[in-house]
Amino acid sequence: MKTKKIEYHHNSVKMVGYLAWDENQIGLCPGIVVFPEAFGLNDHARQRAERLAKLGYIALAADIHGDGQVFDDMASLVPAIQTMYNDRKEWRGRAHAALTALLSQANVDKHNTAAIGFCFGGACCFELARSGAPLAALATFHAGLIPEQDGDARITAKILICNGADDGVINRDALNAVTAELSRDKVDWQLIHYGGAVHSFTDPDADTRNLPGFAYCERTEQRSWALMQQLFSEAFARH
Amino acid sequence: MKTKKIEYHHNSVKMVGYLAWDENQIGLCPGIVVFPEAFGLNDHARQRAERLAKLGYIALAADIHGDGQVFDDMASLVPAIQTMYNDRKEWRGRAHAALTALLSQANVDKHNTAAIGFCFGGACCFELARSGAPLAALATFHAGLIPEQDGDARITAKILICNGADDGVINRDALNAVTAELSRDKVDWQLIHYGGAVHSFTDPDADTRNLPGFAYCERTEQRSWALMQQLFSEAFARH
Repeated sequence: MKTKKIEYHHNSVKMVGYLAWDENQIGLCPGIVVFPEAFGLNDHARQRAERLAKLGYIALAADIHGDGQVFDDMASLVPAIQTMYNDRKEWRGRAHAALTALLSQANVDKHNTAAIGFCFGGACCFELARSGAPLAALATFHAGLIPEQDGDARITAKILICNGADDGVINRDALNAVTAELSRDKVDWQLIHYGGAVHSFTDPDADTRNLPGFAYCERTEQRSWALMQQLFSEAFARH
Repeated sequence: MKTKKIEYHHNSVKMVGYLAWDENQIGLCPGIVVFPEAFGLNDHARQRAERLAKLGYIALAADIHGDGQVFDDMASLVPAIQTMYNDRKEWRGRAHAALTALLSQANVDKHNTAAIGFCFGGACCFELARSGAPLAALATFHAGLIPEQDGDARITAKILICNGADDGVINRDALNAVTAELSRDKVDWQLIHYGGAVHSFTDPDADTRNLPGFAYCERTEQRSWALMQQLFSEAFARH
């Protein structure tokens, strides 16, 4: 497996993504954008890209904050997220720039793309899909989803939402609103609640952040990752 | 694969189950009770037992109504179900008799047992577990679950609940009450909602019953069956 940093831009923001691929794959491979937790492009997101590469995909862990910024505390993090919430056009522009950067890489199959996202990154997946990106699949993990806006493009991707049943960080009403939208639009969606899991269940570092309601759950991490693979195997057409 | 009918009893009720196994398996195999939809032990339940046998399990499709009765209409079905709801001791006795009949078969691994159930059969799984049966796993499909009673044994099985997101037949409040119980007891549970799926989504015959809110959904049938297999692979200890 190989990895490298990739610079890409949206307006005046320079972003530094992390590409991972298996150099032994022959021909086109599905391309997957990995949207990190709100903290930014850290080890967790890089490792997810590497794991996807080992599965035969070409994965780009995206930088949403620009300049590869990573936040360690909520005080600095919240304003960065709020900027995106307040300016969805900017947010979507950055998400789209990640997808475009991925598609510009050699051997990425433009007709078989997906996005996965963790926490805030799950919301990034939805913003990308709502802006019209023709993703085949979209998987989110402990994501704080937010409802659509007027004029959004209809989502066509197959969707998997993996949620900790005891996640007190995310807004459950918003989650229900999103699944209601998906049902209205006859999207192929799945939502799984994992008993015993709270926010950030995929992240082994969650336990050391000392954030209330954040914790790693190994069994849930493994189950949700397996379910994502199952989704991809359904969603990616064979050529 | 081989199959045979098995007679077993609870009090004065004679029940006629359907056993399926793979005669090429060597040594002990996990044993799985299949609780049918409320209609009774019909082709749907028999086929599920046969599919489990092909996976290497020994499966008994249970007869809950006695004498192998199968109902085709709701008018005759409802009183039979109501009898069980009104007398949980009798209900559990019949469910337990099925498990006992399975365990008495050659080559069933008594330490690796599970129950699966469809519709009313999902509720049967829970009654069996609540009566203290040491099941390793329990999977339900479009099940109308009902909350516990005082004095129930704590459930220890790993649980998977597969639910059609648009199922208007089941009681969603009761489902939520059940998952709250499971969380309270720190049970390892998963609940998946499948977009676009309604009641009876595993049953190809659902479409011909002309029952409002019943319909087969092939993709959901396949996904939920795969998830059940994943659960079993986690739950059954290797010797």
